[in-house]
Order: sequence, then structure tokens, then C-alpha cells
Amino acid sequence: MQLLKDRIRAEGKVLPGSILNVGSFLNQQVDIDLYNEIGKEFARRFAGARVDRILTIEASGIGIACVTAQYFKAPVVFARKFRAKNIGENLYSAEVTSYTHGIDYTITVPRDYLSRGESVLLIDDFLANGCALEGLAALTETAGAVLVGAGVVIEKGFQNGGKRLRENHIRIESLAIIESMSPEKGIIFR
Amino acid sequence: MQLLKDRIRAEGKVLPGSILNVGSFLNQQVDIDLYNEIGKEFARRFAGARVDRILTIEASGIGIACVTAQYFKAPVVFARKFRAKNIGENLYSAEVTSYTHGIDYTITVPRDYLSRGESVLLIDDFLANGCALEGLAALTETAGAVLVGAGVVIEKGFQNGGKRLRENHIRIESLAIIESMSPEKGIIFR
Repeated sequence: MQLLKDRIRAEGKVLPGSILNVGSFLNQQVDIDLYNEIGKEFARRFAGARVDRILTIEASGIGIACVTAQYFKAPVVFARKFRAKNIGENLYSAEVTSYTHGIDYTITVPRDYLSRGESVLLIDDFLANGCALEGLAALTETAGAVLVGAGVVIEKGFQNGGKRLRENHIRIESLAIIESMSPEKGIIFR
Repeated sequence: MQLLKDRIRAEGKVLPGSILNVGSFLNQQVDIDLYNEIGKEFARRFAGARVDRILTIEASGIGIACVTAQYFKAPVVFARKFRAKNIGENLYSAEVTSYTHGIDYTITVPRDYLSRGESVLLIDDFLANGCALEGLAALTETAGAVLVGAGVVIEKGFQNGGKRLRENHIRIESLAIIESMSPEKGIIFR
């Protein structure tokens, strides 16, 4: 998605430790027109696929998922993150490791909000090691729902999440895939 | 807002401890059509007011703020919550006490995302004790920005936040104000 790549090039800040700060337009300050273009592009890529529900994870995925949902006419559900392992009985849960923050956490969705047999599209802002999307895929599977695929705004192609998810036959549509990046050489897209 | 009140009456679950669970349509599962009606209603109520930026707080405010932003044609910024008190120099910060969760936390916004003199509208899903909105108002003031007011989806009128904020001359527009609620007697709107 050229509009997105141009924006990443113009405003993205590459920091040490493979961190890409796109807070100025994507995940802390939100350019709502760009969000709408992102939503339309996801709808274009998944055109023809049945999508009964969009599933994302708090926090920065929520806004993108909500604006995107307008183009699918589907409800959004977001998984919550907990540090605790002891969660209630009425929740689906999955364990996720965050390499960025160096912690393990549990993601949950109330059982009422995911139904057997429905088609679920995952939406998230970033795909790096893939653990968050794997957690969402696990919730979907546990619920007996059908995973349509995942729409990702920015994939760090130099980390192994996208490769592993695709090897597991999960359809991944990333709007910008970064081949490599460094503070010195900047950002190179795949 | 009648549509909202009807929905709260139909699906809201009043739990012990003054908890109102509206997760089935507002803050975990999202009815995107309702979000759009909420956004339009905020735009109607603040029509004529200059709004340069919408400020909210993670997590459940983000989706409402993003959909609402479409009707103001303004960017959204969301404050992040931290448990740590030691935050970076490039952030505005405010301390917030959550009575719901029994913890203190720090909310932050990068200095680049709030500018002196601009007009800021706060958006959040709930107003109860008012601490989150007071924190957002403090960030706005620290930045030298102008607080237009706060758009709130559900106000718990039996808690003191709304009263205190209004006494401090902050314009609050709540789409549904709950006068009282209990598991036995249900929900009574103001």
C-alpha cells in the first residue's frame, strides 16, 4: 500500500533494537483518513471472503479494527491482556510471549463473543514475532470458529512471525512489509 | 441518546459493586453501527466548537474516539497507562487513581502530540469517579492546549466524577446518565 509506505518513510523513526516508532500517525496519534484507507485496503484484499467478526487485541489494534469493521459491516471483538494466569471460566484464553516487553501474558475473550462456525478475521497494527496473532488464532480455534486470515498494517519481514504463520497456512495480508531497517540505512520495503 | 439507553437496558448487566457490564456492544464487543451513531451524536452536541484534536485513553476509549474522529475530521491521540512512575522526558504525564482496579497509574502522551493553543476534546466510554478524565484534562492543561470539553458514552450519575468536573467548569456531554442501578431494581436513567 503505497500511501502507507510513503508515510512510514516520511515519519517512521527507526530506533535501536529493531523498534519502528510510527506513533505519529498509526498507533498513538491516529490519522483517521489513513485509517480509513487502511480499512478499505483490507476490505479489498479480503473481498469475497466471509467475515462474521473482526478480532483484535488491545490496545493499539482497537482503533484500526473499528474503522476497518465499517467496510466489512462486522462487529469487532478485542481480546484483553492480563498478567495473571488465573482467569474466569467464561473466557477463552491463550498464552502470549511479548519479546518487545520481555513478559508473558494471557489474552482472553468472553466465550459469548466468539461462536462456533463463524468466520473470524484478525486485524493488528504490527506483525513481528507473530506471538500476538498466534494467540488470537488460538482463541479462534478454541472457540470452534473459522480463521479467515489476518490483516496486518506493518510486518517486520526480518522477524520470523510472518514466515511461521504462513507455513501454518494462515493467510496474512500485510499492507507494508519491511525487509530491513536500521537507524543508519533507514527502511527498505520488500 | 435513546438508541444507546435502549441498548443499555436490553444488554447491560448490573453486577455487584456498581459495575455495569456493557461488553456485548460497547467496550469489548463493538457494534460498529452504534459507534457511528455515538460519533454523530458527539459531533451534534459539540457542533460549532473548534476541535483540533480528540484525546482519549487506552484501551476501550480508542475505538469510540477513532470512529467519532471521522465526524470531527480531527486526529486522535490516546494516552497510555503505565504502572511505573519513572517516565521519559519527552512525555506529558499525569497521575490517575483507578478505584475500579484499586491502583494508581501514570498516563502519558508524547509532547509532540499535544500542542499549545490547540482545542482538545476528550472522549471516553465511562465517567464514574472522573479520575481518568481529570488526568486527560491535566495533560491538556500542561500542554497549554484548550479543553473544549468531554464526550462520555455512559456516566454513572450516582458517582461524583461528573459533578466535580462540572463544578470545575468542564463541559461534559454524556449520552446516557445512570441515576441509579442495582442487580435487583435494574437501571434507572436520569
